[in-house]
Amino acid sequence: MSEKSKSEEIYRQACEVIPGGVSRNTVFRKPFPHYADRASGCYITDIDGTERIDFANNMAALIHGHAHPAIVDAVTRQIQKGTAYTLASEIEVDFARLLSSRVKGFEKIRFVNSGTEAVMAMIKASRAFTGRPKIAKAEGTYHGTYDFAEVSQTANPSGWGDIDNPASVPLVYGTPQGVLDNVVIFPYNDIERTIAILDRHADQIACVLIDPVPHRVGLIPGTNEFIEAVYNWTRRNGALLVFDEVVTFRVNYGGAQERYNVSPDITALGKIIGGGFPVGALAGRSDVMKVLDPREPSLRFPHSGTFSANPVTMTAGYVAMDLFDREAVLKLNALTDRSLSQVREVIRVAGVPVSVTGAGSMFRFHLTPAPPVSYREAYQTKEAVAVINELLDYMYFNERILMINTFSCMFSTVMTQKETDRLSEGLLRAFRALKPKIENLQQK
Amino acid sequence: MSEKSKSEEIYRQACEVIPGGVSRNTVFRKPFPHYADRASGCYITDIDGTERIDFANNMAALIHGHAHPAIVDAVTRQIQKGTAYTLASEIEVDFARLLSSRVKGFEKIRFVNSGTEAVMAMIKASRAFTGRPKIAKAEGTYHGTYDFAEVSQTANPSGWGDIDNPASVPLVYGTPQGVLDNVVIFPYNDIERTIAILDRHADQIACVLIDPVPHRVGLIPGTNEFIEAVYNWTRRNGALLVFDEVVTFRVNYGGAQERYNVSPDITALGKIIGGGFPVGALAGRSDVMKVLDPREPSLRFPHSGTFSANPVTMTAGYVAMDLFDREAVLKLNALTDRSLSQVREVIRVAGVPVSVTGAGSMFRFHLTPAPPVSYREAYQTKEAVAVINELLDYMYFNERILMINTFSCMFSTVMTQKETDRLSEGLLRAFRALKPKIENLQQK
Repeated sequence: MSEKSKSEEIYRQACEVIPGGVSRNTVFRKPFPHYADRASGCYITDIDGTERIDFANNMAALIHGHAHPAIVDAVTRQIQKGTAYTLASEIEVDFARLLSSRVKGFEKIRFVNSGTEAVMAMIKASRAFTGRPKIAKAEGTYHGTYDFAEVSQTANPSGWGDIDNPASVPLVYGTPQGVLDNVVIFPYNDIERTIAILDRHADQIACVLIDPVPHRVGLIPGTNEFIEAVYNWTRRNGALLVFDEVVTFRVNYGGAQERYNVSPDITALGKIIGGGFPVGALAGRSDVMKVLDPREPSLRFPHSGTFSANPVTMTAGYVAMDLFDREAVLKLNALTDRSLSQVREVIRVAGVPVSVTGAGSMFRFHLTPAPPVSYREAYQTKEAVAVINELLDYMYFNERILMINTFSCMFSTVMTQKETDRLSEGLLRAFRALKPKIENLQQK
Repeated sequence: MSEKSKSEEIYRQACEVIPGGVSRNTVFRKPFPHYADRASGCYITDIDGTERIDFANNMAALIHGHAHPAIVDAVTRQIQKGTAYTLASEIEVDFARLLSSRVKGFEKIRFVNSGTEAVMAMIKASRAFTGRPKIAKAEGTYHGTYDFAEVSQTANPSGWGDIDNPASVPLVYGTPQGVLDNVVIFPYNDIERTIAILDRHADQIACVLIDPVPHRVGLIPGTNEFIEAVYNWTRRNGALLVFDEVVTFRVNYGGAQERYNVSPDITALGKIIGGGFPVGALAGRSDVMKVLDPREPSLRFPHSGTFSANPVTMTAGYVAMDLFDREAVLKLNALTDRSLSQVREVIRVAGVPVSVTGAGSMFRFHLTPAPPVSYREAYQTKEAVAVINELLDYMYFNERILMINTFSCMFSTVMTQKETDRLSEGLLRAFRALKPKIENLQQK
């Protein structure tokens, strides 16, 4: 931190016109956030000239890192022809076909502008199809900023209630009771409790919303048994099973859902499918998606969006997902696996009570010797968060590595052994430097 | 319509993977929508090679038309440096300052990805600030796809109820009662009824949501008296006055709100401020916007977004709004005024019972001799919609002019007398061709 940091001066200006000086709380950093100047591949340089390896990739949104030449070329050509029209464009059809070809259950697709919009539209489509008002979601999962989807996202011991009947805890102050009453909360991966809870609202539930590898629950995949149990419950009770794969679609060629025996009825997408531009989508069963069809004599779900399916996002997304083919997915996951072996070795060598969870091209560290198996176990005390922030600062300032602020890494296809070596070497120094503090957390 | 239209073939493919074959219902057109190939300035060319004048401008989102060279240049340079980071970027601060300098009440700004997200965040901020659950909105107004904001958007005679107590009518099938119960509906520009309705929910209302020139209510500006009466009601009752200026910010240099004596507490923005890229924003009083400040010890409204304030949108938006300075606004409004005089003359010469409403750089036609003064008056029968669609088709196919499907025109700064002449000449032929059908509507 230079005493004459340009970022510090920009932040001072930012605070005059932006609440807290940041447009996104994720980029907030004390004493001030840093401002990006440019990025290329897996390296990002701030306006003070410091280059870092980027293991955050805009919150997991950049599967090919920054400014991939093929995406830059295609988008540059499109922009010269216009960025958005009040007409359709061919590329949206090509892109819908490409995504549809990857996953059997993606029979029909509608594009929106963000993961938040995708989850909101998916929930509204579920209600429109079933005529029912409630959704069920797991305690602690993040699904964007639609208020129904964010109930109990940050539930904590003071209000989360009995595990057999978790409370619907508002995230935002002033959330209407009419929202909370329509969201049923269950404990992730806990079959018995989840089914018992769902049963109590059986004829009211439009959909059960699942993130197959929920980040805030601990980045632990849903078990086959759990996903199948929930799926079977939805079949018996006339509800839909819907997946939020905004983050997890990167996990396999066909998303995290590829590894289960059962398929969701609708899936929300976002992040990587935009090739670096704002995007969201919902994809699923033809008969369900028909609620959006403007040709229907009685249209159940009228829906539009000024920037939805704009040709810039569609072009970038098409190129990105075309490049992220089966081979690229396997190669990226293999690199991540090797990195995972390296960091597990680092944990052993450093002798710290740290564990790591994840799937595909992402992993997350926990300051506990065994990985958590539930949200309530993964829930971090203020003391743990403080140590994590020290570790993140160590990595950021000393090792020049940018990670996601949950202490997670999201890999991109342009990374190599060089970057995973730097990651493990940096982590070794960070764990050693903060070992006493990490150990101290265990003694509480 | 060529028999071998490329658009027809693309649409056939689209129907296999996209519900109804369209990503946005606004671009749907029978028997098939057309696909854009390229656009420049105020001209758009479809993939069958037909060029049209664009008076739709991506649903009012393009204030400088398509592919403005200054925007193309700036965005092309930014894309080479990356499109989105897990760091802040300077351009978001510059852009926030630029917008803040235009409107006194824009003390603090937060960027999001769409008008829908902006209105949703504005409503959530209002609840977080006041601790109250309800919003009040006008019957028939469009405010994006957040379900609270879309109540009674398309209310019709079968369900809209008594004008002294309008029903909260769901737009989407399956909307929870918990949503409807938290939305109070009032008749736009009707002071006495509105105040009486608001009074019945006085201690429950977080905000009164106003579009100052609501498109679907008839594109009639809110009267000074109405806006002041609502403002004064919110002061007396501890509620916020919030404006949706997603469409109307184009009307004056400081938005449509510039012409009133009172100011909203928060304003939602979108459309033109993105320079052609996905955007939304909320701007308003520092003390209210503080609910979003991550530095607060008790953060009332935690909020983030993967693509919010991405440097591509910020760059395009900055250039677009910097070009749309006071002089450009006045020039555009003057051009629109001249066009309005021309089309009024056309209506007179054609001798059709047609009226026109609007503000700034936008106007809308109504198939009634006098313009409607309320949503219920502006509400169109199926027969009227059918004639409007014939007029739109006449303009589109015969005159090669693209308008918004409510029979509206949204002007851009790159238009000239040449395009307004073609508009009025085209309208004269369209009105003459459909005169009997237009007149026939009056006799019902």
